[in-house]
Amino acid sequence: MTGCLTIVGLGPGTAELITPLASDMLAAATDLVGYAPYLARVPGRVGQRRYGSDNREELARARQALELAASGRSVAVVSSGDPGVFAMASAVFEAMERGEPAWREIDVTVVPGVSAMLVAAARVGAPLGHDFCVISLSDNLKPWDLVLKRLEAAAAGDFVMVLYNPASKARPWQLGNAFRLIARHRAQSTPVIFAHAVCQGDERIEITTLRDADPAKADMRTLIIIGSSATRLIAEGGKPVFVYTPRYADLVEP
Amino acid sequence: MTGCLTIVGLGPGTAELITPLASDMLAAATDLVGYAPYLARVPGRVGQRRYGSDNREELARARQALELAASGRSVAVVSSGDPGVFAMASAVFEAMERGEPAWREIDVTVVPGVSAMLVAAARVGAPLGHDFCVISLSDNLKPWDLVLKRLEAAAAGDFVMVLYNPASKARPWQLGNAFRLIARHRAQSTPVIFAHAVCQGDERIEITTLRDADPAKADMRTLIIIGSSATRLIAEGGKPVFVYTPRYADLVEP
Repeated sequence: MTGCLTIVGLGPGTAELITPLASDMLAAATDLVGYAPYLARVPGRVGQRRYGSDNREELARARQALELAASGRSVAVVSSGDPGVFAMASAVFEAMERGEPAWREIDVTVVPGVSAMLVAAARVGAPLGHDFCVISLSDNLKPWDLVLKRLEAAAAGDFVMVLYNPASKARPWQLGNAFRLIARHRAQSTPVIFAHAVCQGDERIEITTLRDADPAKADMRTLIIIGSSATRLIAEGGKPVFVYTPRYADLVEP
Repeated sequence: MTGCLTIVGLGPGTAELITPLASDMLAAATDLVGYAPYLARVPGRVGQRRYGSDNREELARARQALELAASGRSVAVVSSGDPGVFAMASAVFEAMERGEPAWREIDVTVVPGVSAMLVAAARVGAPLGHDFCVISLSDNLKPWDLVLKRLEAAAAGDFVMVLYNPASKARPWQLGNAFRLIARHRAQSTPVIFAHAVCQGDERIEITTLRDADPAKADMRTLIIIGSSATRLIAEGGKPVFVYTPRYADLVEP
């Protein structure tokens, strides 16, 4: 007997940004699997089973979800933001490919969500209004040389950049290195955004520049956005209020 | 008297993927401004004024919205997908920066939405599960040389790529050129996804490879996703069913 598995994007953390489809899929599931703090965001339903786990256990969590689905349960794996962007969907497909052949017969659906980068961008205007790159700075799962190669390519291509996982206690040095690499390609006045804990109680958004960006202000809950050469600040009374990247290349120097 | 302006992301087109926040902001507005087919998706409310316009008129539409807000109205500009990704938010800030000084005092909010690329990715699995780039192929607003430079950089950096605006009647040749450029860096077996009209009645998703990708199958309503060297296919009975990019660099050859 084979059940089904839905990987559901909860969005950035507030109920007002969860889609009706995500809410419906969560309510319909017999079993919820996920990182415990994300599970805690989902309203309870009588008879529904919950399997909370630690943050570092993505693959084990994915295997557990596939096992439950293979046994006939209707499983929802909860994911923050969008499940396809540095989140649970990739782990589930990896576990499926490496796991039991029968798991490939499970009906798997991915329900997209509002990703944290879109919220971070919306908070300050439209910095992702033109071509951009999304890069995880973490070298837990890939060599640091590959991170450097991608930063170099993104800088050479004059892309706006979104940096996920910019720093942790074990990796306090990477963001500073990234800023220095990018500064070899971009002006010191390039807008930089620190978006800390979007949609959480301690949300903090800072608009600064490559010259003044302090890597020590970032942690695992921070997203960094770095402008391209075309990204612009709109200031009011000397303070930056909005950041946007025009769709028009000729706006670099209007 | 100054009103307010909210730029609202409708998501990809079905009600089940509009966030509650977006619905609330649309209902609260006194005036709705947008491309007519997007406006048609928004439920009506007595007394609410609607200003529909043509697709090519982003800046004129943005100016109209700012004028209405400056006159004291509560204006919502509707945008498909997420307003910050190749959509209306950038046009509004551009109009603000170029326009009346008084427009800078307008209270502007961006309400994020589920972008089309996240839906396209979800349909086939998790192709955006690792570092990726988002590039518009249109040279209406930027020189084609800049598009080429960014494609080259994204290919050199081994990024997954999302291509917006891959083709139109006036630009039938660009996607083929892009595929040929990328094929100089990537294997012929690299997964390529054609996502046509996601969430519309004529939605059509095709999983193919760089070898077999036919540029003639794309138009203005198609999104293209091209895998990195690590992107993998999960097949069942010889047919590709899922595409994902693992978070683990060592999975290139497991």
